[in-house]
Amino acid sequence: MTRIDDLPIRDELRGQSPYGAPQLDVPVLLNTNENPYPLPEPLVERIAERVAEAARHLNRYPDRDAVELRTRLAAYLSRTAGHTVGLPQVWAANGSNEIIQQLLQTFGGPGRTAIGFEPSYSMHALISRGTGTGWISGARNDDFTIDVANATAQIRELRPDVVFICSPNNPTGTAVAAETVLALYEASLAAGPSMVIVDEAYGEFSHRPSLLPLIDGRPTLVVTRTMSKAFGAAGLRLGYLAADPAVVDAVQLVRLPYHLSSVTQATALAALEHTDALLGYVEQLKKERDRLVDGLCGIGYEVTESDANFVQFGRFTDAHAAWQAILDQGVLVRDNGVPGRLRVSAGTPAENDAFLAAARTVFKEYSTASEGSA
Amino acid sequence: MTRIDDLPIRDELRGQSPYGAPQLDVPVLLNTNENPYPLPEPLVERIAERVAEAARHLNRYPDRDAVELRTRLAAYLSRTAGHTVGLPQVWAANGSNEIIQQLLQTFGGPGRTAIGFEPSYSMHALISRGTGTGWISGARNDDFTIDVANATAQIRELRPDVVFICSPNNPTGTAVAAETVLALYEASLAAGPSMVIVDEAYGEFSHRPSLLPLIDGRPTLVVTRTMSKAFGAAGLRLGYLAADPAVVDAVQLVRLPYHLSSVTQATALAALEHTDALLGYVEQLKKERDRLVDGLCGIGYEVTESDANFVQFGRFTDAHAAWQAILDQGVLVRDNGVPGRLRVSAGTPAENDAFLAAARTVFKEYSTASEGSA
Repeated sequence: MTRIDDLPIRDELRGQSPYGAPQLDVPVLLNTNENPYPLPEPLVERIAERVAEAARHLNRYPDRDAVELRTRLAAYLSRTAGHTVGLPQVWAANGSNEIIQQLLQTFGGPGRTAIGFEPSYSMHALISRGTGTGWISGARNDDFTIDVANATAQIRELRPDVVFICSPNNPTGTAVAAETVLALYEASLAAGPSMVIVDEAYGEFSHRPSLLPLIDGRPTLVVTRTMSKAFGAAGLRLGYLAADPAVVDAVQLVRLPYHLSSVTQATALAALEHTDALLGYVEQLKKERDRLVDGLCGIGYEVTESDANFVQFGRFTDAHAAWQAILDQGVLVRDNGVPGRLRVSAGTPAENDAFLAAARTVFKEYSTASEGSA
Repeated sequence: MTRIDDLPIRDELRGQSPYGAPQLDVPVLLNTNENPYPLPEPLVERIAERVAEAARHLNRYPDRDAVELRTRLAAYLSRTAGHTVGLPQVWAANGSNEIIQQLLQTFGGPGRTAIGFEPSYSMHALISRGTGTGWISGARNDDFTIDVANATAQIRELRPDVVFICSPNNPTGTAVAAETVLALYEASLAAGPSMVIVDEAYGEFSHRPSLLPLIDGRPTLVVTRTMSKAFGAAGLRLGYLAADPAVVDAVQLVRLPYHLSSVTQATALAALEHTDALLGYVEQLKKERDRLVDGLCGIGYEVTESDANFVQFGRFTDAHAAWQAILDQGVLVRDNGVPGRLRVSAGTPAENDAFLAAARTVFKEYSTASEGSA
């Protein structure tokens, strides 16, 4: 039998394993930050209707520029994110992963570097490597906020071509202050400039306003978004960015032609027609997220402030053992490799109850904190 | 206003334009090798049904490994391409473009090279460049077949990491003989080995059997396919490959996680349920393709033998002027930059009649051949 390493694969891939959270068959799945609420049935019907329309022309290539979809995404951002943008400022792709890949193919790549402040969304580093972009691991403070003094010094000294800022940050949960983004952006100007990519995948869940207005007058600042979380459409794979029109023009130099299928465009357009219903679920999830924070604090855990639809908690002497102990009770959370911490996604009230019960059970044996009041 | 070149894009992107055929509003579109037949209505309804099912779980990430879809694609190949394959030998992505990109990220990339025999599918070179893979332009004979002696010498001498063989070749139309593929494969073994990628996007339209059986016992030989053409689903963006299971394992090291959306998987599965109806259209298109060849020969054009759903014809002193003259009659064909030649996709009988009438009109002024008998 031929094995991967018998093939002439790139040297840096040798011995690696594919990225991805374990997909286990467990009653309560709180490991991948999915939205627990299925799409409302009227939206399901509207998707079927729009996809059927699209399928009647499926023999033709899709709209390569996704004009209708980008126009509707721009309208959504203009209405909800505190800054008016139009078609020329918005670009869409198969998940924000593909958006990030296109940005790195345009602004990163061989001989160039990107910096991210870890722990953060691990795909920033992985897609950097996948595009031949050197990766620089920037530091955070002990409370998981970005260490601004160190970060700006790193940017000035190492002159990365791309700066990733994840806000709210995955897996820790906290949103980044606009002043921090601006400080890093100023440093990035001195560095080349670098492109500053603000990943707002969880933006709709934040206590803070969107950082979108910062793109105004800053052509090297990009905000990325996704329909996976707030729109409850992880299965759709629809990511997008907002930036200066020149950035949108630039990524078209590297995008695969016709990258976004007609059925994806049709489904996303249907979902955008139901924005208000979906944002209603976001409000419910924010309440549940806050309830998880309170519940975990009540048990005695150390909990990181969260602006997302997930919560980081600890500390554990052995996070992986704690992960397994929670899993043994039928609840799958995420071990992101952050020492002493785990991450739980906000689920339905019943799922969160099940999780809190499990978290309470394992607290005494696995946590290093002293038992709390609740 | 900021322009692309004001941004810190990669040097090799400066001054470039996005790839893509002009999308013009013209009565007869025969420029992008689309299948002219819309999907049958029962299939449209089945797509709506399967997508609605998928949409009810759209809040969850898609099956990362697309197990059901790959199983059905394997069954389709086993039934139609002369060689039995199973799930472990098949991989799927957003169009064969993404398949090619994943293969190049795995086996090409910075410091490595790929060779293709031009004129051929231009995305092989473009995606090579997009992944930092050096590009080597291999030569063809005057009749557009691969020059085997020169090609094997180039492979032995230049030791490319990836060898592209497009069969039937786009834009010329002719299928590659199995002996030619084997000769290049043998040379590739001496070269490292290289990975040999046989692009069979137009395989279903060929007079020759598929080259799929060649993967047997050759773990460095890959066959790529698409649902864009034979399945009349260019709008779906579903490409796939068949190869040794180790190749399928290897591309999973570079694929973006959850790259293939639930709606794409559902739509493709619906189309695969209707394979026989869709292959019926393929038979009609093969007849129309042959009629185009006969008609163009009858007018007096020099026509390249075609195994695809398109036909290359010429010669012209100025192919672009001839392209414009045909367009002026409401028929859009493709100027691929092959000196003295144009390419026309097989359309419906009425579209092909309109094209042949236009081709007859422009013959005298633009063709270098002498007028024919018809």
